[in-house]
Formats: sequence, structure tokens, C-alpha cells
Amino acid sequence: MRVILASASPRRKELLKNLFQNFEIIPATGDETYTKTHPPDIVQQLAAQKAAEIEQKLCGSCSADTSISTSSSTCTCTDQDYLIIAADTIVVFDGTILGKPHNKSHAAEMLHLLAGNVHQVYTGVALILFTQGRRQAIQFAECTHVRFYPMTEAEIEAYIESGEPMDKAGAYGIQGIGGRFVQGVEGDYQNVVGLPAAKLYQVFKKIKDFPLPF
Amino acid sequence: MRVILASASPRRKELLKNLFQNFEIIPATGDETYTKTHPPDIVQQLAAQKAAEIEQKLCGSCSADTSISTSSSTCTCTDQDYLIIAADTIVVFDGTILGKPHNKSHAAEMLHLLAGNVHQVYTGVALILFTQGRRQAIQFAECTHVRFYPMTEAEIEAYIESGEPMDKAGAYGIQGIGGRFVQGVEGDYQNVVGLPAAKLYQVFKKIKDFPLPF
Repeated sequence: MRVILASASPRRKELLKNLFQNFEIIPATGDETYTKTHPPDIVQQLAAQKAAEIEQKLCGSCSADTSISTSSSTCTCTDQDYLIIAADTIVVFDGTILGKPHNKSHAAEMLHLLAGNVHQVYTGVALILFTQGRRQAIQFAECTHVRFYPMTEAEIEAYIESGEPMDKAGAYGIQGIGGRFVQGVEGDYQNVVGLPAAKLYQVFKKIKDFPLPF
Repeated sequence: MRVILASASPRRKELLKNLFQNFEIIPATGDETYTKTHPPDIVQQLAAQKAAEIEQKLCGSCSADTSISTSSSTCTCTDQDYLIIAADTIVVFDGTILGKPHNKSHAAEMLHLLAGNVHQVYTGVALILFTQGRRQAIQFAECTHVRFYPMTEAEIEAYIESGEPMDKAGAYGIQGIGGRFVQGVEGDYQNVVGLPAAKLYQVFKKIKDFPLPF
């Protein structure tokens, strides 16, 4: 079975390595527009759009139905089994979604919000599994609470100068320099990094005849 | 200032890289005997023994006082500033300390205890800072709660066969294959990996004139 990670994130790649010895990376461009309003729904919608994009590439005549959480249909356009794994992560503070910073002052604004407070990180995962002529689409979202230590102005400035915040939702990376500001988490840490690999593994366990990774 | 990590653990090395760009590694043999009874005291005692061992190597005529949490004295036997960082991690389930497994059946025994339950991970950190002719010893311990998913017999067996559990307290590595069994944590994740780098950074922030790492 081809296992495909629909993400260019080196962090997601590292986490998936703990589940699969071999997989391909085909990054989805990712349509960043969404119609949902609740964070867990938004991240699932965005992840599903990425998974569908990759499925279209693999199998042109299939139309991935991303409008429902779980679907199954019969596909005859490929004789190869595949699993597509897509994910999307957002940071939410006090109900407001913090995406990737547009510039340094935007990053500073976000870090001021996070410092000394608790925020939520949501990662949505969308799987498309095609095996034995049957297609299954599975989606879920995981939420982790993250508490930041207070930060001084100098720390915020120096952290932004390090460059790390600029390509990350919420303007920080928990697995890098940003980790020094994280007092603790409640929930799945890997979900904050970008892929809830433990939950993903548990989902695989429940799929009948799934070739469990080890 | 020489920064010395008194540990051969590649995991601690990786975490410390997020705090210091340059540091040396001088692994302590580590006297594994302890007189304390409470987990946070035990890990601090074991860490302090490691730090003292390295200080002895650096500075033969200093006798590190590891019996109290914070001490300061004047040292004249070296003209070089240094910071020694030592750590010790234990896993505690239901009040019982789980060390590194002696063999495969011991590892299986531990994993049976952890599966489907919550346990605690304690890391003790001992610092010896010698700067401007003044010596400071600082110790602290951090506790993180870890919840495991249930595990099947086959999973426990396969995980042990992977070899990962054999050199780790509690017979698992949260940052490796073991991560798939971790439903969530409450507290500092890096503390479970082996070094509470965020707390360490916060401690550095409070030390007067400490050359803050960035």
C-alpha cells in the first residue's frame, strides 16, 4: 500500500516516521478557504481539502467526497491500494483563530496574546484509504491546551528575530526555541507539533484488515 | 562560560540545543543510590550526584555540597566560568518507581502497568554555576502526568521487540515509537523526554547577570 503524506512540513514527516517506515510526500497546495465556523470543523475541512487534492492527482476520475466525515464508495480507476494522510493545524486564543503571521509586527501581536495565557491548538486529520477496491474517508480533530510562561518585550523581539515564528500558526514552534516559553500542555503534545500520531494510530487499529504499522 | 551537559542521553542533548548553541557533553557515571523517599527529592538527589561528579573532574579541590538545594561558596581553584547541567528522570506508577527494565519480561511487566492508566514522570535537574568567582548550586524537580491508551498483548510484545523500551525508565520512549500509546500529557512534555528545558530557561532568567541563552 502506498502511504502518502500530503504535507511538506518536516515536523509532520518526523512524527509520521514513528508510525510508518516508508511513505511518500506529495504536498498539497491546500485551499485555505473554509465555510465551517468551529475550530475542530475548520481544521477537518482544511485537511479534507488537502487529501482530496492529492487523491485527484492519483486518481483523476474519483471525486473525493469531503462533505461528510466518513464515506465509502467503490473505485475502479486504480488497482493500487493507497492511504492519503492530510492535516491542518490552527491556534485559537480566546475564540480567535491565529494563523501564520503576515509580518514581524503581526507575530509580535500574537505572542503578546499567548504570553502568560492558555490557548488551544487544533489539528484536523483527513485520511483517504483505498484498499481492496473500497474507498474510505475518515476525519477527526484533536485539541490540546497550551500554557505559556509570561514573556518580556525583549524575549518576544529576540524570538521573532530568530526567524522561527514566521512560518508557524500562532507564531511559535513548540519543538524549537519556542518550547522554552511553554509551561505545559494538556492533551497530545504531537498534536501541537502538527500531527496527532497517537490518535492516528488508534484510528488505524480500528480499521478492519488495516496493515498496522510497526 | 563553559556549559557542560552531564549526560550521554541524545534526547537531553537535543533539548538543550534549543537553549544553548554551544555546549560540551561530559557524561556522569551517576551514583544510582539514593537516601530520599519522595520522587521529586530522589531525582534531585540523583541529578546532584551527577553534577558533583562532573564538578570534581573540572575542579578537584572544590567539594560540591549537594545536600542542600541552593548553596553558594567561593572557589579559587579555577579561573574559568562554568555551568554544569545534570538531570535524572524516573517514572512512577501508583507510588512505585519504575526504572530501566532489566530484561524483556520486566519491560512487559511495566508496560502492562502503564497501559490504559495515568503515571507520573519526574525529572530532577541540578545546576552548578561558577561565575565571577562565585559558586551557586540550584536544584529543582518537575512532574508531568502521562496517560497511556490501552495496549494489546501483541502491541506490548511488538514494542519490546523494537528494542526501544530497553534503555528507558518505565520501558517506553515518548518521542519514539512509544508516542503512539500516549493519549496525552498534563504538564511539560520535554520533562518526560528527559529535560524540562522551559523550566530550566525560567530558572536562568532569574539568575542575576546570567548570560541568557539565545
